[in-house]
Amino acid sequence: MDIPALQQRLRRFADERDWQPYQTPKNLAMAMTVEAAELLEIFQWLTPEQSVALSDDQRRHLGEELSDVLLYLVQIADHGGVDLDAAVERKLAMNAIKHPPLKRS
Amino acid sequence: MDIPALQQRLRRFADERDWQPYQTPKNLAMAMTVEAAELLEIFQWLTPEQSVALSDDQRRHLGEELSDVLLYLVQIADHGGVDLDAAVERKLAMNAIKHPPLKRS
Amino acid sequence: MDIPALQQRLRRFADERDWQPYQTPKNLAMAMTVEAAELLEIFQWLTPEQSVALSDDQRRHLGEELSDVLLYLVQIADHGGVDLDAAVERKLAMNAIKHPPLKRS
Amino acid sequence: MDIPALQQRLRRFADERDWQPYQTPKNLAMAMTVEAAELLEIFQWLTPEQSVALSDDQRRHLGEELSDVLLYLVQIADHGGVDLDAAVERKLAMNAIKHPPLKRS
Repeated sequence: MDIPALQQRLRRFADERDWQPYQTPKNLAMAMTVEAAELLEIFQWLTPEQSVALSDDQRRHLGEELSDVLLYLVQIADHGGVDLDAAVERKLAMNAIKHPPLKRS
Repeated sequence: MDIPALQQRLRRFADERDWQPYQTPKNLAMAMTVEAAELLEIFQWLTPEQSVALSDDQRRHLGEELSDVLLYLVQIADHGGVDLDAAVERKLAMNAIKHPPLKRS
Repeated sequence: MDIPALQQRLRRFADERDWQPYQTPKNLAMAMTVEAAELLEIFQWLTPEQSVALSDDQRRHLGEELSDVLLYLVQIADHGGVDLDAAVERKLAMNAIKHPPLKRS
Repeated sequence: MDIPALQQRLRRFADERDWQPYQTPKNLAMAMTVEAAELLEIFQWLTPEQSVALSDDQRRHLGEELSDVLLYLVQIADHGGVDLDAAVERKLAMNAIKHPPLKRS
């Protein structure tokens, strides 16, 4: 996935619809959370076991909600001045320090 | 960003910590929403204008929260059987149909 | 608002629909978050000023979403064994200590 | 629970700290969602069974997060011009129509 190219496409998409005034990081963060909750809704009444064995319809729905979250996420990074690839690498390194692997005997 | 490679790294990370039993799509969806709200928290009392002009500290914090959301997002796609690159392209096509661009005179 | 009476009504409502198996605190917490995000959606593209001056339709919609959140909230308290009236009083006391009032000259 | 009296106390609390400029319905909706997600976090890695049998510590924590959500909820109703008691009764009536009870033989 080419994040900078995706961000360019989304900027052009917003420009062609005069959406720029709405696209503050604050508003985009709200929109991303709304989409995260729509994804959460898929799973709210499922047992853990059911959540592992999704139907084709549920999987297609999940793909749409994951995409909605991701599209807002890359726009927040863009408008907030965050290099997402670099931030992810830094976070992975932090996580490895915070949670050391189990010692296996 | 190489999504399948990232998913592989996160699977190995979870394996080395015996986290697999916790990683149902249901639980991962909850965790992603929690991280989305931590990102939201950065902006909750800011004016729209302040949310556009983040300090270096705020931008670093934003990068961490964006990464947390993204890392859960790619794990949900992985454990839920969703091809994220394909899902995003399909969603972009759907969005273009749903929201036609403005006609400019 | 009589919280225990409301909790009783919601238990009977769930019983009459065989919803008890779904009503774990975990699932109810997910449902409450989903409703909180539906409320958030009302405001996501509004300016702060617009969010203060809602139309009658927006106010009616807001009332429905507030109610949805509240109904799940009292059910979580009920199923989680929390005395909500007491918890709120304790939290108000904690907040007063955490955030002392401004000294006025 | 006396909602109007609680709203009065929270208005005075905000006044004594000069918080009024921050308390738009938009910002309060963000804050409520952040608190809902902190409640969600309690349950994210628990099994459904564990979520039913909370420890005293978890129950105390749950009471704090429920209160945080409720305190923002009544402030949104207050600043958004919603009569919460009336809205809840209307929603209960709507839910009874939307979800008819099961017929028992």
